[in-house]
Amino acid sequence: MTDQSTNASWGGRFSEATDAFVARYTASVEFDQRMYRQDIQGSVAHATMLCKVGVLTEQERDDIINGLNEIQSDIENGKFEWSIALEDVHMNIEAALTAKIGITGKKLHTGRSRNDQVATDIRLYMRDEIDVISAELTRLQQGLVELAEREADTIMPGFTHLQTAQPVTFGHHLLAWNEMLERDYARLQDCRKRVNQMPLGAAALAGTTYPIDRHYTAELLGFEAPTENSLDSVSDRDFAIEFTSAASLIMMHMSRFSEELVLWASAQFQFVDLPDRFCTGSSIMPQKKNPDVPELVRGKTGRVYGHMISLLTLMKSQPLAYNKDNQEDKEPLFDTADTLRDSLRAFADMVPHLQAKKEFMREAAMRGFSTATDLADYVVRKGIPFRDAHEIVGKAVAYGLETGKDLSEMTLEELKQFSNEISDDVFDVLTLEGSVAARDHIGGTAPDQVRAAAGRARQKLSARG
Amino acid sequence: MTDQSTNASWGGRFSEATDAFVARYTASVEFDQRMYRQDIQGSVAHATMLCKVGVLTEQERDDIINGLNEIQSDIENGKFEWSIALEDVHMNIEAALTAKIGITGKKLHTGRSRNDQVATDIRLYMRDEIDVISAELTRLQQGLVELAEREADTIMPGFTHLQTAQPVTFGHHLLAWNEMLERDYARLQDCRKRVNQMPLGAAALAGTTYPIDRHYTAELLGFEAPTENSLDSVSDRDFAIEFTSAASLIMMHMSRFSEELVLWASAQFQFVDLPDRFCTGSSIMPQKKNPDVPELVRGKTGRVYGHMISLLTLMKSQPLAYNKDNQEDKEPLFDTADTLRDSLRAFADMVPHLQAKKEFMREAAMRGFSTATDLADYVVRKGIPFRDAHEIVGKAVAYGLETGKDLSEMTLEELKQFSNEISDDVFDVLTLEGSVAARDHIGGTAPDQVRAAAGRARQKLSARG
Amino acid sequence: MTDQSTNASWGGRFSEATDAFVARYTASVEFDQRMYRQDIQGSVAHATMLCKVGVLTEQERDDIINGLNEIQSDIENGKFEWSIALEDVHMNIEAALTAKIGITGKKLHTGRSRNDQVATDIRLYMRDEIDVISAELTRLQQGLVELAEREADTIMPGFTHLQTAQPVTFGHHLLAWNEMLERDYARLQDCRKRVNQMPLGAAALAGTTYPIDRHYTAELLGFEAPTENSLDSVSDRDFAIEFTSAASLIMMHMSRFSEELVLWASAQFQFVDLPDRFCTGSSIMPQKKNPDVPELVRGKTGRVYGHMISLLTLMKSQPLAYNKDNQEDKEPLFDTADTLRDSLRAFADMVPHLQAKKEFMREAAMRGFSTATDLADYVVRKGIPFRDAHEIVGKAVAYGLETGKDLSEMTLEELKQFSNEISDDVFDVLTLEGSVAARDHIGGTAPDQVRAAAGRARQKLSARG
Amino acid sequence: MTDQSTNASWGGRFSEATDAFVARYTASVEFDQRMYRQDIQGSVAHATMLCKVGVLTEQERDDIINGLNEIQSDIENGKFEWSIALEDVHMNIEAALTAKIGITGKKLHTGRSRNDQVATDIRLYMRDEIDVISAELTRLQQGLVELAEREADTIMPGFTHLQTAQPVTFGHHLLAWNEMLERDYARLQDCRKRVNQMPLGAAALAGTTYPIDRHYTAELLGFEAPTENSLDSVSDRDFAIEFTSAASLIMMHMSRFSEELVLWASAQFQFVDLPDRFCTGSSIMPQKKNPDVPELVRGKTGRVYGHMISLLTLMKSQPLAYNKDNQEDKEPLFDTADTLRDSLRAFADMVPHLQAKKEFMREAAMRGFSTATDLADYVVRKGIPFRDAHEIVGKAVAYGLETGKDLSEMTLEELKQFSNEISDDVFDVLTLEGSVAARDHIGGTAPDQVRAAAGRARQKLSARG
Repeated sequence: MTDQSTNASWGGRFSEATDAFVARYTASVEFDQRMYRQDIQGSVAHATMLCKVGVLTEQERDDIINGLNEIQSDIENGKFEWSIALEDVHMNIEAALTAKIGITGKKLHTGRSRNDQVATDIRLYMRDEIDVISAELTRLQQGLVELAEREADTIMPGFTHLQTAQPVTFGHHLLAWNEMLERDYARLQDCRKRVNQMPLGAAALAGTTYPIDRHYTAELLGFEAPTENSLDSVSDRDFAIEFTSAASLIMMHMSRFSEELVLWASAQFQFVDLPDRFCTGSSIMPQKKNPDVPELVRGKTGRVYGHMISLLTLMKSQPLAYNKDNQEDKEPLFDTADTLRDSLRAFADMVPHLQAKKEFMREAAMRGFSTATDLADYVVRKGIPFRDAHEIVGKAVAYGLETGKDLSEMTLEELKQFSNEISDDVFDVLTLEGSVAARDHIGGTAPDQVRAAAGRARQKLSARG
Repeated sequence: MTDQSTNASWGGRFSEATDAFVARYTASVEFDQRMYRQDIQGSVAHATMLCKVGVLTEQERDDIINGLNEIQSDIENGKFEWSIALEDVHMNIEAALTAKIGITGKKLHTGRSRNDQVATDIRLYMRDEIDVISAELTRLQQGLVELAEREADTIMPGFTHLQTAQPVTFGHHLLAWNEMLERDYARLQDCRKRVNQMPLGAAALAGTTYPIDRHYTAELLGFEAPTENSLDSVSDRDFAIEFTSAASLIMMHMSRFSEELVLWASAQFQFVDLPDRFCTGSSIMPQKKNPDVPELVRGKTGRVYGHMISLLTLMKSQPLAYNKDNQEDKEPLFDTADTLRDSLRAFADMVPHLQAKKEFMREAAMRGFSTATDLADYVVRKGIPFRDAHEIVGKAVAYGLETGKDLSEMTLEELKQFSNEISDDVFDVLTLEGSVAARDHIGGTAPDQVRAAAGRARQKLSARG
Repeated sequence: MTDQSTNASWGGRFSEATDAFVARYTASVEFDQRMYRQDIQGSVAHATMLCKVGVLTEQERDDIINGLNEIQSDIENGKFEWSIALEDVHMNIEAALTAKIGITGKKLHTGRSRNDQVATDIRLYMRDEIDVISAELTRLQQGLVELAEREADTIMPGFTHLQTAQPVTFGHHLLAWNEMLERDYARLQDCRKRVNQMPLGAAALAGTTYPIDRHYTAELLGFEAPTENSLDSVSDRDFAIEFTSAASLIMMHMSRFSEELVLWASAQFQFVDLPDRFCTGSSIMPQKKNPDVPELVRGKTGRVYGHMISLLTLMKSQPLAYNKDNQEDKEPLFDTADTLRDSLRAFADMVPHLQAKKEFMREAAMRGFSTATDLADYVVRKGIPFRDAHEIVGKAVAYGLETGKDLSEMTLEELKQFSNEISDDVFDVLTLEGSVAARDHIGGTAPDQVRAAAGRARQKLSARG
Repeated sequence: MTDQSTNASWGGRFSEATDAFVARYTASVEFDQRMYRQDIQGSVAHATMLCKVGVLTEQERDDIINGLNEIQSDIENGKFEWSIALEDVHMNIEAALTAKIGITGKKLHTGRSRNDQVATDIRLYMRDEIDVISAELTRLQQGLVELAEREADTIMPGFTHLQTAQPVTFGHHLLAWNEMLERDYARLQDCRKRVNQMPLGAAALAGTTYPIDRHYTAELLGFEAPTENSLDSVSDRDFAIEFTSAASLIMMHMSRFSEELVLWASAQFQFVDLPDRFCTGSSIMPQKKNPDVPELVRGKTGRVYGHMISLLTLMKSQPLAYNKDNQEDKEPLFDTADTLRDSLRAFADMVPHLQAKKEFMREAAMRGFSTATDLADYVVRKGIPFRDAHEIVGKAVAYGLETGKDLSEMTLEELKQFSNEISDDVFDVLTLEGSVAARDHIGGTAPDQVRAAAGRARQKLSARG
């Protein structure tokens, strides 16, 4: 990254060379070079189309394509020298092409501009990333669904306000995570539709005077369609923002899973054991086993939120069409994709190895009057309106707090103090198993419902193809 | 909003009354009362379902529904007294119902919890808002498309970097705005699918022990389906975040239109005239006519970005299931919907009355060598590679800057200094009309393409039904 | 808020009345009326100065001041009718003044504009709010410091990664919170300096042609100085952003305290008991006592972050000087101040009544090898390099995990397996009391250090005057 | 960055090696190695202190310091091999030290932990960055003040709502920018005070059992004082957030300057000429000279806002003390500092070479009735109340719009139509020079005031030492 000579692509009009610091400050090649594959892919399609419509001869097309393939291979073998003076990935590759094949290389840029070229490259890049990320998401969901099936009968306390609320099954809890990811997947696919539109042919901003065939180029590149308006095509970065929004929701969900794993791995909860290789130790406290991966995932949430704000701020109030500001779209986008992919991968690797510590889960579910709602529902079934039943159980709980007894530990007599409607069959509803089994409707925590829900989830996952 | 007595809905267990300040700090009724219609709609459907499955008698169901209808009418006639002591819209309405119809009122809450009830209310509310906002969006797009058709031949300068780049048509520019809104519409509809899922039946977090029929309730309320997991149902606020994300993109677009309108209304541009009723004056400078509406819309962008960050922050790291934090979801959501609806309405009202000042547009397009690319393309067609053509024109422009002449004002001889390939037919491509007409492919600025694009846009709009 | 007639303050130039919807959309009076006191305060000072420099007679000045005082009293007694047609608090008050005292009222606006007037009002308002908020902050800190002193000897586990790390004292933990608030206080005071500068006299943007005395007005209003540049004066909203930044940090800290209180109030930790009046119950689960106040404070964090983003977005790329966008500065600012003040108040009320459940704290500190670092330090003092000592203790912990014994429960012989340097005196360092007492330097958790730190904190608080 | 063997610093307790992907995912050395100088600086001071209090011998201290100096020199000569397996900059350097000097190297970590070590390193790093950034800020301000003095008499239109408002001087406008930066400087210095506190000695979270002298270490490192609370010391990242907040305000200001430069460089304004070396051209439009540097600076604003949100999100709801999440603090911080420093540098280089195009500025100021307020003030001085004067001038402007005449182009007779009070001396106030000269008070745009303000600004700058 050393050559600093004047950029030949627009030097004609200028009377003064670019300052070296300014050259570095304004260049993008250090970060946009990672789109070299997409840049070459787009150029190959563009040359093919130019030949079809008669702007290039077949020979010229072949020279260009061969030259580009060689360049790709040079890059991948570490033999390509990137130059800051050539500003960006596009000019670096085009200059190398001309060096390789001579004057024909200068014809490649016919009928396009860097404005539509970069917009095309990013969309190709994002499409690839969305597919990789979707695959990791699917892998994580598969792990969750399998674990949920194995743990469909495992009882743990369900919390609201982090207070013990009602018993639930661990499988049910895992499927709650899966539902979040299911929506995330759908959002990514919706985003992909809008990514997969081809701006190439918009040229600088107004289209081009050459007889280009945009439908053909779109077909070559696997785009759904060419975009409808050239001014919009070169200035639109909605897809980047939409992607970071979808990513923010995913990371928000990951932060919630992480928070729970961190809690559950603590000495206070002890609900799960994380595999050693997803943890690290302390440089000073020899006894520590820290849940580093969930903590780090949780920490990375802010990073992705930040990138989204960065892009929204970037586009705020920008007049049409392309402005240099837009060069700032790439780094947040790339880092969002990297963060998302790696965080999903870490969880997809880890989740199948989570060990439920069932005895601690069960013991926690026993404490905290978790079957109080069941008692209320029982009393309602005896004919008491729900609001009155609520008060009756409230008093029983107050008595339990005083006497140190859970509801299931009280005698029938004790329970009858609060309502005469209570009889011997009450004890069926006060067991943990009875409580979870009774929530037996779609969406409920009953083990059978959990198994059925896991089955439906598994079907959706396999339908993804 | 004055009654401060203890809340009967959970008072049983507590030994100390809620502090008045704390009651106000934790109550939501001041802002959630705006969902009263949705709350009643949900309760009517819940009661209907409870009757179908045998939990309520037909008489009870009818008493509840009649009572709720009366309450709705009381609220709409300003005869309902909201109480902070009753915390929220749900308890206020339920307490009023019990006051009206007696003990049967206490049965309404059977098989549900405020956790699933509020989640249902917000979704119903959001669904309504999305429909109203979509209608305003459509109205704005219709105005743009009509104006674009009228202005398909009007020439203005196209800008990149706010420098004159190439001539475009005003109609083409307006359709660029339309494309942004077209994507916005699609995003709102995608969001609506995920809003339109029914959490009711999730109860507090685990489902309920009553034999509820969630598919039936979903059908009554027009939801696509009941949600799949109770823990997720009461804690999910994705739809709120997704809505504010879609709204942020819309406001970002509106900020871009606004920026351009503010520029165009300035003495320096004078491209458009805004109707007086969308402007205001100055308390001190009598000559001012300020483009208040676009400025204010631009300013409101931050508000919506902020609400999205507020919601993303809210949900970060929340363990399952419901936590009190979630009460904070409503105000940003309501304000986002209000801001969006009003800003779209203001623009939908204003856009049809925009007056293009064609002479200023044309004059600006004449200046700034806007046909330089046409000259380059011309030279390429004579057989010169694009990159060399670029340099030739660069020199012609430098000469024009020195001599104060636009390209079309140079003689053939002068032009020939830069390339011998230039001949008499060059002047056809140096006119503004020639320049725009030559960009004659899908997405290009040629007037015929603009008319065709407007036709396609109009079709999409009418297909919305 | 009903009068919709044309605004007399700038109607002269306009040919068309403002549309009613547009009037409502662009008006600010619904939210800026809360600055009526500051608006009147500023007008009184302005009139006083205008009289001093000869622009108003003493009679005129007195008429104006009396009129304004009457208006303030009308507003406070609910007898003032706010009009949307008059747009904002300024025009509403000025119109009422002219209605009251006739033509003299029209002279008040001499030498100023709404642009500098509103900037002055907000600064006065913010100054007041900062003082109230600082007082609540101080009250909360006092509560913390007192509690810390009472709990200087109470031992609890200190956590890193939410894993038991080393024993600390509860007092030490409380003083960590105090340190955060101490920085917050300093930031608020730094912000106040920059708020307390007077923009009045900048007029619309360029200053005024009247012989105004800005130093005198600044003195009358208690401002430190008049601002240095009129263009900056009417467009600067830094102070608003700086305030929301300081507020975001405060709310971030409050979210951390809240998180810990929610954890500590759970059945798994049981470290503290929150007073009933800061909690609420459940509409469905009779046994619940939910830590609503900390949860809600935690939830409100996002709200303040959002307001800051809103303001930063608002100001991004605004050209000088005043633009209508700036009207959007007030609602985020007001809501930030309200949220901050109420959240601090709720905590300042609650903290003195936190009940430490010492037995649970102590028991938790006993578990989890919390004195492992003490053992390592012990071994180092016997001459082993720290990194080797770390490994020795690591093996002792592994042995403890296998055998179910804490370090203090092992025999000397067992311990000697890992290092021959361990002798009988090791048990002194393995007690909780020994462990905390040994961290006896400034910043350390030793009870004596905690008491000393509380003393220094108390002194700083009383020095605030 | 290749060695992947197990980390010796905490391996004792673990039974399974870290997965290679997890090792990379959780390691920080790729980005924290840039703090190597600060890490070594902190270690040297720590060793010096350990010797002073008797924990190390003089020989040990010297061996450590010499070893560290060699390592620094290795790093700076590219001879140091960083290892991901060693996780971070701290362990990499410590491992190298032990390899170099043997067992004594293992003693360096006595009485500290990575938790307090990294907090110290970042603070040292930030202190250095703040000083460099402050110097660039000062340099930019110097350029502005000098240019303002040169342009104290140059007249341009002042805008509100981007509508011509009143004439101002270019020098006055430049000083408005300087005022923003003046506040920015003060905020950075306030932030620096809070950065400059020493966490070292907090160890993992509770302090250490060694007899450390934190005041001495603080003195050696140039810190103002040791921090007051160990739990807070290892978990506090306020300074990072406060720095990004101050940076966000600076970038917001830079976005405003940039917006104006972009506008002013357009064909529509033509107020300034930017030096060629701060501009670039187009790959397709040979005539373009794009204001790349201001556009890019404007675009980079979002990046810094994003980093601040990232950090605020990171810290939200984190329980004490250190959590792995905090590793995410560094990248946003480093990128913020880099962005800020480079953007300020680019502007500091560019501003002195801005060329005012005075004729265009003046012509623009002539148009748009910019002296309308002067006419109103004139009429007020004749005894008409301001509000009535405003209406009189409003009518004169309406007449001017109809007849195409500016106020100064109307005859006395024409002017008298609107008020009989107008007489021959009116033409003095209708000139641009008369208008600006009349705003002759502190903060006003009169050339003499601009010169005085520039003088005061220059004094403040030189007082910075």
